[in-house]
Amino acid sequence: MNPSVQPVEKPYYAVIFTSLRTEDDDSGYAAMAERMVALASQQPGLLGIESARGSDGVGITVSYWESLEAIRLWREQAEHRLAQQAGRTTWYQKYRLRVCRVERDMQFERES
Amino acid sequence: MNPSVQPVEKPYYAVIFTSLRTEDDDSGYAAMAERMVALASQQPGLLGIESARGSDGVGITVSYWESLEAIRLWREQAEHRLAQQAGRTTWYQKYRLRVCRVERDMQFERES
Repeated sequence: MNPSVQPVEKPYYAVIFTSLRTEDDDSGYAAMAERMVALASQQPGLLGIESARGSDGVGITVSYWESLEAIRLWREQAEHRLAQQAGRTTWYQKYRLRVCRVERDMQFERES
Repeated sequence: MNPSVQPVEKPYYAVIFTSLRTEDDDSGYAAMAERMVALASQQPGLLGIESARGSDGVGITVSYWESLEAIRLWREQAEHRLAQQAGRTTWYQKYRLRVCRVERDMQFERES
């Protein structure tokens, strides 16, 4: 059984945010992260968010957007800017952020 | 302090692999995952791999490549093809794979 290939009819964009947490302020971080997902969900052009963080402190969050303009508006959102600042002063040891154009998309789901 | 923006001089590619594990065969899965990272690292054109899996079973692995051709060669690699098959029969409840062109790249690292 092979995965169904879903050709991307209209390219969309992914923001890949990879981070390593500090050990500071775990509860503040969790509340902020939850709030940012709620806020982003209200932004125009958000298509989805996927997120995972392992026990080694490495986390990857990928958000998907209709356009580069939607990404720019989210980056400039006032409360999000404050969270970005706090990320640099408190929560992240380091991070890397990549903006990508999604060109192919494939998925598999077990039938049982 | 703002993150240093590293404009991407030459676009490269990201494969975003998002998956939900079954509860089957944890030790076999870990060995396969480790082997695939070792194998991929020998492939021409691999730039790096980032991976995280949370306690909810959701995992994200992003691999970065110099070209679409390098991605194609890795997809067709014989032992990797067997692992893909085992992923569908045993290890994954579902997965999604997106191929993207990286257009912007930014990073931050704490100085202390």
